[in-house]
Amino acid sequence: MTTRVAILGYGNLGRGVEAAIKKNPDMELVAIFTRRNPSDLKINSSAEVVSVEKIEAWQDKVDVLIICGGSATDLPVQTPKYAKLFNVIDSFDTHAKIPEHFKNVDEIAKASNKTAIISVGWDPGMFSLNRLYANAILPDGKDYTFWGKGVSQGHSDAIRRIEGVADAKQYTIPIETALEKVRKGENPELATREKHKRECFVVLKDGADAEKIEQEIKSMPNYFADYDTTVHFITQEELNEKHSGIPHGGFVLRSGETSKNTKHLIEYSLKLDSNPEFTSSVLVAYARACNKLSKEGNFGCKTVFDIAPAYLSPKTNEELRAAML
Amino acid sequence: MTTRVAILGYGNLGRGVEAAIKKNPDMELVAIFTRRNPSDLKINSSAEVVSVEKIEAWQDKVDVLIICGGSATDLPVQTPKYAKLFNVIDSFDTHAKIPEHFKNVDEIAKASNKTAIISVGWDPGMFSLNRLYANAILPDGKDYTFWGKGVSQGHSDAIRRIEGVADAKQYTIPIETALEKVRKGENPELATREKHKRECFVVLKDGADAEKIEQEIKSMPNYFADYDTTVHFITQEELNEKHSGIPHGGFVLRSGETSKNTKHLIEYSLKLDSNPEFTSSVLVAYARACNKLSKEGNFGCKTVFDIAPAYLSPKTNEELRAAML
Repeated sequence: MTTRVAILGYGNLGRGVEAAIKKNPDMELVAIFTRRNPSDLKINSSAEVVSVEKIEAWQDKVDVLIICGGSATDLPVQTPKYAKLFNVIDSFDTHAKIPEHFKNVDEIAKASNKTAIISVGWDPGMFSLNRLYANAILPDGKDYTFWGKGVSQGHSDAIRRIEGVADAKQYTIPIETALEKVRKGENPELATREKHKRECFVVLKDGADAEKIEQEIKSMPNYFADYDTTVHFITQEELNEKHSGIPHGGFVLRSGETSKNTKHLIEYSLKLDSNPEFTSSVLVAYARACNKLSKEGNFGCKTVFDIAPAYLSPKTNEELRAAML
Repeated sequence: MTTRVAILGYGNLGRGVEAAIKKNPDMELVAIFTRRNPSDLKINSSAEVVSVEKIEAWQDKVDVLIICGGSATDLPVQTPKYAKLFNVIDSFDTHAKIPEHFKNVDEIAKASNKTAIISVGWDPGMFSLNRLYANAILPDGKDYTFWGKGVSQGHSDAIRRIEGVADAKQYTIPIETALEKVRKGENPELATREKHKRECFVVLKDGADAEKIEQEIKSMPNYFADYDTTVHFITQEELNEKHSGIPHGGFVLRSGETSKNTKHLIEYSLKLDSNPEFTSSVLVAYARACNKLSKEGNFGCKTVFDIAPAYLSPKTNEELRAAML
């Protein structure tokens, strides 16, 4: 069964979906919908580039619409809106607002006989799945999540908004000694500062005051004040050359006991050269599941928790049992 | 919803299930069925100990029967047999025979309106799940599974069958340099000998020929001949003192590309103080799922691939979305 996919929004995530579809012979990218002028888009596939204003005409030609907008303002509007017309998937990642987003999408998807899957990616997504499985298996235990080493877009943006900063990149780095304590089953209580440190590479505008900017970064509440933060001032050339990638990753651990002094450690980790390309690859696997669920008449909003793993695979259940179990 | 569980077979696995149920307030152990004389069993709970011959009378008092027999001769008979009477779960782990076992159990479970879940544990089980998820996300990549450090029951038994051996314990140990190559994304081709080594602790009978036994172990086809094997001769006291545990664990890795030179690594690992207690904890989580599926009228045989993660948790879907996504 071929899944005909369309993308809404052609940024890093949209380009990642385009790349991921090339790795999946049973998936076909039929259209890219954009708010920009379609003729301005240079794409890397033979998909049709279409103005989002004409999206309604594509209802019968698309099995799943992957919505590649941002969580802050795009997805809360787009996902419910397009769940009227299409089976949809998004990577909504504002954890605190997931219940509200779910409710909005669920009502519309159910009323329209569409299947929607929200908050797909690695966190939320694969990390969430691993938290759920590990908690179900080891109810008497403790969870740990570490992020990095990777680029935090939000933290990089926060630095770039400071007066006198021309450009910046911020890395979130898990603290190895804390990870090791968890792995040893010590179940440590870890303060924010003990779990992660932050490293910033900053390009100054002409005449900017480096010392003042460094202080401003290090004292920024929520973003940096609770962490040990290092600031390096470099040239734009060096930033472009050495820090242009968007790597990320992290660790989900659960340490627990099944009886007195009998301990177990479950660890899941990701090391990603490209955060958006990996997220997109998860989105594409769930697009396959979305199409299957829709064909079965299983409508409404879902998350990764609600979807049996076999739906993600192009293999049949028989093939999976024979080859992967 | 409380799940009333019964155990069939009170060995290491059965005792592990008994311990795991104590960690799950929504699970209740109502009976332990045994082929032995019930009065001979010393158990660690208030469950009723019942001769397996009286099992039929318990149909209405048990939601899920966890069958804790061995894969070689017990489960191929027991799981289909008791799927006539109960929702059942087993940890059948003869990978090559899973399709046949599935078929046998599926026919009977469907005909009897029962839900069965087979091959639950960590391999098959959690390792299989991680292979499936990682393959769906990174279709262009390579899989690696490493086992250990842990005790292999089969290999220990093989040594104990050698003439002149009084007792033995065998550890399977993953080779760290191979693991590191995989983690670096080198996608190495690894021979059997390059992935694992084997370490044996052997107690000799009086007058046994140590050198001859060491050769016999090291040249044993399938079990040891393809590995670098170390043999240590120790006393029964030392074996009892230092090697009485049944630890195990291992690593499932997938290394793949999403576009040219953009690499990702997904790694899942387990470090288990007790192999049977962890396997039992997985069985108990799936017993919860089994009960829910049965209540929904979802009958027939399933594996971990067919079950949406949310079924494993005692939390509601709303709670899961709010707390774990």
